[in-house]
Amino acid sequence: MQETPKGSRLHIAIFGRRNAGKSSLINALTNQDIALVSNVPGTTTDPVYKAMEILPIGPVMIIDTAGIDDIGDLGALRVERTMQVLNKTDLAIIVIEPELGLTAFEEQLAGEIKKRGLPVAGVINKWDLTPVPADVIENWSQSLALPLLNISAKTGQGIEELKRVMIKLAPDNWEGPPVIGDLVSPGDTVVLVVPIDLAAPKGRLILPQVQTIRDLLDNDACAVVVKERELKEALEGLKQAPRMVVTDSQEFMKVGADTPPGVQLTSFSILMARHKGDLETLVTGAKAIESLEPGDKVLISEGCTHHRQADDIGRVKIPRWLRQSVGGELDFEWFSGGSFPPNLAQYKLIVHCGACMLNRREMLYRLAMAREAGVPIVNYGLLIAHVHGILHRALAPFPLAQMILDE
Amino acid sequence: MQETPKGSRLHIAIFGRRNAGKSSLINALTNQDIALVSNVPGTTTDPVYKAMEILPIGPVMIIDTAGIDDIGDLGALRVERTMQVLNKTDLAIIVIEPELGLTAFEEQLAGEIKKRGLPVAGVINKWDLTPVPADVIENWSQSLALPLLNISAKTGQGIEELKRVMIKLAPDNWEGPPVIGDLVSPGDTVVLVVPIDLAAPKGRLILPQVQTIRDLLDNDACAVVVKERELKEALEGLKQAPRMVVTDSQEFMKVGADTPPGVQLTSFSILMARHKGDLETLVTGAKAIESLEPGDKVLISEGCTHHRQADDIGRVKIPRWLRQSVGGELDFEWFSGGSFPPNLAQYKLIVHCGACMLNRREMLYRLAMAREAGVPIVNYGLLIAHVHGILHRALAPFPLAQMILDE
Repeated sequence: MQETPKGSRLHIAIFGRRNAGKSSLINALTNQDIALVSNVPGTTTDPVYKAMEILPIGPVMIIDTAGIDDIGDLGALRVERTMQVLNKTDLAIIVIEPELGLTAFEEQLAGEIKKRGLPVAGVINKWDLTPVPADVIENWSQSLALPLLNISAKTGQGIEELKRVMIKLAPDNWEGPPVIGDLVSPGDTVVLVVPIDLAAPKGRLILPQVQTIRDLLDNDACAVVVKERELKEALEGLKQAPRMVVTDSQEFMKVGADTPPGVQLTSFSILMARHKGDLETLVTGAKAIESLEPGDKVLISEGCTHHRQADDIGRVKIPRWLRQSVGGELDFEWFSGGSFPPNLAQYKLIVHCGACMLNRREMLYRLAMAREAGVPIVNYGLLIAHVHGILHRALAPFPLAQMILDE
Repeated sequence: MQETPKGSRLHIAIFGRRNAGKSSLINALTNQDIALVSNVPGTTTDPVYKAMEILPIGPVMIIDTAGIDDIGDLGALRVERTMQVLNKTDLAIIVIEPELGLTAFEEQLAGEIKKRGLPVAGVINKWDLTPVPADVIENWSQSLALPLLNISAKTGQGIEELKRVMIKLAPDNWEGPPVIGDLVSPGDTVVLVVPIDLAAPKGRLILPQVQTIRDLLDNDACAVVVKERELKEALEGLKQAPRMVVTDSQEFMKVGADTPPGVQLTSFSILMARHKGDLETLVTGAKAIESLEPGDKVLISEGCTHHRQADDIGRVKIPRWLRQSVGGELDFEWFSGGSFPPNLAQYKLIVHCGACMLNRREMLYRLAMAREAGVPIVNYGLLIAHVHGILHRALAPFPLAQMILDE
């Protein structure tokens, strides 16, 4: 079975001092013996991402933090790692160890979580072993400005109540707009153009393609999946023109030529830009390409360290297109992985990958960072469409974004 | 990005005594710092499956064995774990620690691997630290009946040569027949019926569906993906009848009714049964349902412990259908996970799941075990088609299997 994609899972980060029982809590929440449970402090040595199903919340990604919490207050490295986890957290749980009690660690953490406006549940674990007097709980609760729940991960006491609290706290809008479901009507046919090149690992489709097919099925529509070379034949085989054609960005030119003018055309990148982030911000970023000048610094930000092809899009193609567009050299920098580099304001443009490995929360966080630094940000797909002069057409399903582009 | 499915990866098992440098070798092969490397014996505590890309071999699954090898010869538990790993191994590598030299462990292992006819490469690690004299190497090589390669995982010496040996050793046929590619011609349209029910986790398609779409694209065909409710409309929207309709097994009846008689109809289960295992053996197993009698023992074998639905197919539906077919009670047993239960010969029938979590090697191994025990074996999809009287039609693309059924 293929799993629910990471981006479609509510990200729940579990914080707590060593030996507070984070792993036991994960087991209790999921009824599974997946996390390694041990009473030796520090069993877990790195934040671990665990795709799970918590009924009735559904598919979640549990972030089992560790290392972060071993001394009690937040040193520089621990602060950074905590921040990186919080950047992708939809819902936080703070687990208090009753014998250690409330420490600077929990207080700083709760403060940071509240500052970000993230929903958070506080629990005191080990209720069965070390019950905490009511007045002490009251004190702790006031210090954290957070109601606290007594639980025992070991016996299961309080776990159902915690789940109810989590369901209440889970943000309604964490998933963002649909991939494509709101753009089609039942019975519609949508043609998806999926090139198979060297970058497409064998035996699979990439996630945005799978998500688009699934969202069409969920909305009673039909997906016609075809390579760019067979597109024309596939369109001719349909009695009626399709509602829309969605293509991989890199085939925009060819697909645009083969798609009848009356048919809406867009790309997986644009669909995902809306689903995962904020299409309007990225369109504004695409427009900023026009203001780039030779010598400007451009950050190319990759969400993961993927296997690079010889003709890699982020390393080779995009720099080439941007140089052509600007008519001169640009000063490119690349940055991969967990965050943005410091000194964001030095760049004139940020070009972000499709963010298939990032969840919506993290993508929104990155967009906000760019906005704060006053740097326009665009993603690969919108950039490709724009430098090829096809972005206006590709935004037809999204009138607001199209207006921003045409301003 | 979604990864290349597990079943499409060459499974390479790396064996060796503790501290022989198995993890370092994995890093050297993949140029990545993924495995935890340490010179404390026994860093790895369980066989770990690592999906990787080894160029130019392509996507592989490295099985990093451990625990298996900590004493030197094979105790009962270690034997069992070794066998479980070997059941899914396409290519084995034995890593010799030069100071420990050749022990009973390597000899027994090499014997077992050769008995199974698996390709195997032998390497002596730590060439940089502890070069082994040529005559000693010659002795070891003769004892193992295996050429031995000097490498240093740390410095990279010999790694390129090892890769060349691995490429030469990799079996040609480990992937089995295509999913569907040999059944279609360029330009064909195939309709895939994908029901979306509670068992379909959100935001995704299950692997056989994705693999089928991908194989159609790889063969210049077009996939029309639709739910069972929209199938009729989708068929009516095509100017020409499709080459084939492929459905989820559980919708056979409805899809069979909506598919015109002249159009080939089969199921993802049947496609995968051929791709992963041996369709003819499973058809013989389906026929054996007719000889079942009330009171017979039936083994329902699940390849993984998945999340169970209320109306679970293996636990509820299949027993119900079989009882109806036999006209009486049957004695069901369920077994999940890494192997078959002992005493296989006591069963009159084995019903296996779709094996989406097993690779071809392991599925073939299980079929061979059933054959040896003289027990017919069928999978979920073929069983469903057979008890609903639709298997003959569903085998139309596979004349040999159809002949076996009709015998």
